[in-house]
Amino acid sequence: MASEIERKFLIKSDAWTAAVSHSVRYRQGYLGQVESSSVRVRVSDTDAYLNIKSASLGIERLEYEYTIPLADAHEMLDQLCRRPLIEKTRHWVEHAGHRWEIDVFEGDNAGLVVAEIELESPDETFERPVWLGAEVSHEPRYYNVCLVDRPYSVWSEAER
Amino acid sequence: MASEIERKFLIKSDAWTAAVSHSVRYRQGYLGQVESSSVRVRVSDTDAYLNIKSASLGIERLEYEYTIPLADAHEMLDQLCRRPLIEKTRHWVEHAGHRWEIDVFEGDNAGLVVAEIELESPDETFERPVWLGAEVSHEPRYYNVCLVDRPYSVWSEAER
Repeated sequence: MASEIERKFLIKSDAWTAAVSHSVRYRQGYLGQVESSSVRVRVSDTDAYLNIKSASLGIERLEYEYTIPLADAHEMLDQLCRRPLIEKTRHWVEHAGHRWEIDVFEGDNAGLVVAEIELESPDETFERPVWLGAEVSHEPRYYNVCLVDRPYSVWSEAER
Repeated sequence: MASEIERKFLIKSDAWTAAVSHSVRYRQGYLGQVESSSVRVRVSDTDAYLNIKSASLGIERLEYEYTIPLADAHEMLDQLCRRPLIEKTRHWVEHAGHRWEIDVFEGDNAGLVVAEIELESPDETFERPVWLGAEVSHEPRYYNVCLVDRPYSVWSEAER
């Protein structure tokens, strides 16, 4: 069992780009989304993972992740996962003792950039970088699984 | 990638019970069922597996199976999988060079017994044991994933 505590934010400037330590391009898709959970297939350059996450809203969720063969993952993405696939580049930025993950989306979700921080407990404090925008942890439309059914390209101006 | 060719049959007598080589009790559940695939968690006495199967009807399906920690599997069954869980005992029977798997269901599916044979190709021949009944390979209601939403206890007499 793993319980994941993540907070998600928008970005208000490009200042983070100067502090990137490394970046990885991901291709991912979803095998299922039911009331209680989502099942994700994710491929990076060299690795593939199957990830199961409880669908409860908010910042604390059950999560399981398993390494699977790269060929299996590409086949599932090509043949079984729902469309569109999620394609994005993840950039890591260290700031004041915390690690931020900044996802720059492509394809149907191009234009969307979000920053996530993983915390040890729901009330853990952290220093906000100058480039950090509004928190969207509790907005389901920013969940990657929701970006399949309703990608950023169809969001209204009020939702952005 | 693995492509699975299975044929499924009803049972017309108990004669198979005399030929059982070994038996395992399974507890399993489904994390998701969408158009294209199902994701199953299965636990036996000592092992746990995550299984992904394409949802196409018929006898040939894409299938992937991965070993996962037993504790993770029990937690997913308890907290994430749809109700009811599928509980059954699988019995293995060797017959004329082929291995049959005979599933005896419990709980909401008590009364249902089906025999499956796995083949190398769709047209592979095999000898029918005397206890073998009608083929149901193409009847979706016998899929384990379908037995969650519509268990054997609610089937009409005409469906049995």
